[in-house]
Amino acid sequence: MGFSVGVVGAGQLARMMIGPATELGIDISVFAEADGMSAAMAASMVGDLGDASALRRFANGVDVVTFDHEHVPLEVLHELANSGIKLHPAPEALLFAQDKLAMRARLGELALPMPSWARVDSAAELTAFIEDHGGQAVAKTPRGGYDGKGVRVVSRGEDVASWFDHGPVLAEELVRYTRELSQVLARRPSGEIALWPVVESIQQGGVCAEVIAPAPRASRRLQVEAESIATAIAENLGVTGVLAVELFETADDRLLVNELAMRPHNSGHWTIDGSLTSQFEQHLRAVLDLPLGSTAPRDRWSVMVNVLGGPASGTVPDRYPVAMAGYPDVKFHEYGKASRPGRKVGHVTVGGEDLDDVVARARAASMALTD
Amino acid sequence: MGFSVGVVGAGQLARMMIGPATELGIDISVFAEADGMSAAMAASMVGDLGDASALRRFANGVDVVTFDHEHVPLEVLHELANSGIKLHPAPEALLFAQDKLAMRARLGELALPMPSWARVDSAAELTAFIEDHGGQAVAKTPRGGYDGKGVRVVSRGEDVASWFDHGPVLAEELVRYTRELSQVLARRPSGEIALWPVVESIQQGGVCAEVIAPAPRASRRLQVEAESIATAIAENLGVTGVLAVELFETADDRLLVNELAMRPHNSGHWTIDGSLTSQFEQHLRAVLDLPLGSTAPRDRWSVMVNVLGGPASGTVPDRYPVAMAGYPDVKFHEYGKASRPGRKVGHVTVGGEDLDDVVARARAASMALTD
Repeated sequence: MGFSVGVVGAGQLARMMIGPATELGIDISVFAEADGMSAAMAASMVGDLGDASALRRFANGVDVVTFDHEHVPLEVLHELANSGIKLHPAPEALLFAQDKLAMRARLGELALPMPSWARVDSAAELTAFIEDHGGQAVAKTPRGGYDGKGVRVVSRGEDVASWFDHGPVLAEELVRYTRELSQVLARRPSGEIALWPVVESIQQGGVCAEVIAPAPRASRRLQVEAESIATAIAENLGVTGVLAVELFETADDRLLVNELAMRPHNSGHWTIDGSLTSQFEQHLRAVLDLPLGSTAPRDRWSVMVNVLGGPASGTVPDRYPVAMAGYPDVKFHEYGKASRPGRKVGHVTVGGEDLDDVVARARAASMALTD
Repeated sequence: MGFSVGVVGAGQLARMMIGPATELGIDISVFAEADGMSAAMAASMVGDLGDASALRRFANGVDVVTFDHEHVPLEVLHELANSGIKLHPAPEALLFAQDKLAMRARLGELALPMPSWARVDSAAELTAFIEDHGGQAVAKTPRGGYDGKGVRVVSRGEDVASWFDHGPVLAEELVRYTRELSQVLARRPSGEIALWPVVESIQQGGVCAEVIAPAPRASRRLQVEAESIATAIAENLGVTGVLAVELFETADDRLLVNELAMRPHNSGHWTIDGSLTSQFEQHLRAVLDLPLGSTAPRDRWSVMVNVLGGPASGTVPDRYPVAMAGYPDVKFHEYGKASRPGRKVGHVTVGGEDLDDVVARARAASMALTD
């Protein structure tokens, strides 16, 4: 009788599943790391991500468990899976979103295009890698890094010497890319895949700031290649639910895989207003192994601009009287999070025919929420 | 710090406010008449609609109180308003949605077009009205009737003799209309009004079955007249929030006001998927006196078909595997209500360029949820 989904993690991604779950009559409950988080409204339990017995109690009340983030320890995930709980994505797939070294090794086996990379176990090894790659490289902690944390451009291994106290480091070639793209799809356990158009993602300080859908000047070849890379990853890694593949586009027209996320992703937020099926609805359908919805875009162009930091005083909704009056055709989204410099506290989406106009309105509307 | 709205009544209308409230960061809570209702997820209190002190406790936790239906006794509403609670719509407006005799009298003062009518206090008076109006009339109980209940076509006053035990009855001319239309708008306390296009509403057994937006073959004159009638009602009756004006279109090209609803309305459900701003988001914005959003349609045609009764066994979501596979571009909505003959348990919406195709797909998708 009906479907139920449990989401581990109570951030804005879990929050944005509440609307489509409610519309579809899917019972959604959230395991929150703390009180008062973004998805608190649907929280049925508050606990620690490392507490397997609390997670098991949570999971026993739902048909399937999915995730707001990649921070549940893998050994806990395996313990849950072994006790018969349905996890989507499964730990065998989620490993590759948690561990960048494992991800690079697996993509290498699949011969997928990516920056040249190495596992380095000491500052000296990193320095050697840097010398082999033009005097600069990107050092990444294999686990726990996101939004630019745990990622640094280095010209000497000693710059991140302390990182080696915690284990090996991933060294990557510093790619001279022309822009960043993202290919988002959803895959059901039974195999069906639905892809949204490849989008351009504009970063500021390592954080996604804007997304343009579809990616401007994307040739048919580029779109097909992005789709084929993301499909190969989804199928070979056994991803279920939404997968986002962040890509570099290079000056010589290659696509290189940067990062993976196995959950709804910032580069897919535009789909709430800009696609017939949002990534949040699609994720719910996918993890329940329901048929996927159409990913047709609603507008020629959709532009999503993050609201970073929030207003200096008060909250984003305090700015609605001015922002909504100025921008009646902008869709406003707020995450119920306190203001903090650089923090993602909301986003806006605008659709339309003229890209310059759509970008300008989306930026201005986002600024109206923080000024 | 932020906005909060309390909704009295936990039916599907309150439920469909949860998604947009969550996206906008508006704290929504619901006063439910019973456990397990459609909007139970947001219920913060369960109580009786006649219990003013319970409603006052509920209202004290929110910025503004609004409604899922018209069933809160007017004396309770006045008591709340007198104690300083912000109600939208206010009891002075809601009276005209609760009491059809008061509504007819007020529309008469405003010289708005409507069927000829009379207050009748006995079966004999009703019979006299019927004889004056071609041998048939519509008898309506002034209060509590909706979805065809408390409404009957009669040819003799004695047919509804027992109704007079409860007070006067509204007698209306039986209008030979060619179709039913509905004009939905939202109005803020500060006066701003935003209107959606006038739609055609197709009833079955007194219940709304389908809505086509915009109304096919609607001339510019018809649209303007529907807008001007609804605007006059909203302004003169002091309506705040969403107002739906149900209209008859006659063979001689007149529009006559049938019924009023001062809340999101079945004839506006298409706006969730078919308009830039849904009636549920707009209602929240309006009752909070926030600037209204664009009502631009997303598609040339949007068709909404109700899911009436539900499947013979199980629930609507049990039918998703087949229905979603067959109709990837249909938007499915389910209200979390048990199946019961004729009951509104969900709806589907389809958008597109070709009206015949859109209607056919919407009907077929709705049927796939009940077969």
